[in-house]
Amino acid sequence: MGQLDTTRQPGCELCVTDGGFLVMRNLKLRVIRVLDLDYPGFYRVIWNDHAAEFTDLPTADRVYLMEALAKVESLVREHLHPTKVNLASLGNVVPHLHWHVIARFADDKHFPQPIWGSTQREVASSHWDGMRAELKALDIAIQAALN
Amino acid sequence: MGQLDTTRQPGCELCVTDGGFLVMRNLKLRVIRVLDLDYPGFYRVIWNDHAAEFTDLPTADRVYLMEALAKVESLVREHLHPTKVNLASLGNVVPHLHWHVIARFADDKHFPQPIWGSTQREVASSHWDGMRAELKALDIAIQAALN
Repeated sequence: MGQLDTTRQPGCELCVTDGGFLVMRNLKLRVIRVLDLDYPGFYRVIWNDHAAEFTDLPTADRVYLMEALAKVESLVREHLHPTKVNLASLGNVVPHLHWHVIARFADDKHFPQPIWGSTQREVASSHWDGMRAELKALDIAIQAALN
Repeated sequence: MGQLDTTRQPGCELCVTDGGFLVMRNLKLRVIRVLDLDYPGFYRVIWNDHAAEFTDLPTADRVYLMEALAKVESLVREHLHPTKVNLASLGNVVPHLHWHVIARFADDKHFPQPIWGSTQREVASSHWDGMRAELKALDIAIQAALN
């Protein structure tokens, strides 16, 4: 696993922890599922080595990362049938390259605002129980597609 | 221009307008600069044909789009030296594929929150006057890089 340790940044949380519930990890990247009561279909694709910006990666790695992201998005669409998928690489708080993949639904807490925007409606966590029952199969499909 | 007209979606604003201040347009995509008083270095890369999700594009188009996005990000970094760049494809309101490229600064209105989050501080628009003076050169560099 030495290869994973070459570019750790002291003090960077995503260099030393998975950063959430680990779905899969390979030599380049990992996928975690965010355990969010309001957003069941919320994954992050995290680059293993420390890089702050998308353009800190060489082209081949950017293509690899975005095709991994596309696989996650495709599987999220196939399994959860969201109204829209939101993709974002922000990293203002933790500047270690990671992409959010968020299944959005017309009746979720913030739709059509971004999940970081103002609340549009209150939604009971139990509203998503049926969808949560689908997540194990989705996790397994993501693991199979990226390993 | 027939090729651009094949996949228009009735009622979609980004199928019939540029969607902002046009920096460049080629057969596949265009770049607009968002005229935002709080965010001078805010661009959008908009796919010309109507597609809602990133994974509605075939692989070759996804790679082309993301490499265009990388060129815009690189030039934004080179010209404006932001604290962080934020990339996002949301499209909840206008589900026509477009990517936000936003130069973020530690002293901007929402940092470290996303620009859609809660205000962290009030910043006079004049604070960014010096940066606005750099935008013409940045626009021209983007145009040259993508045409």
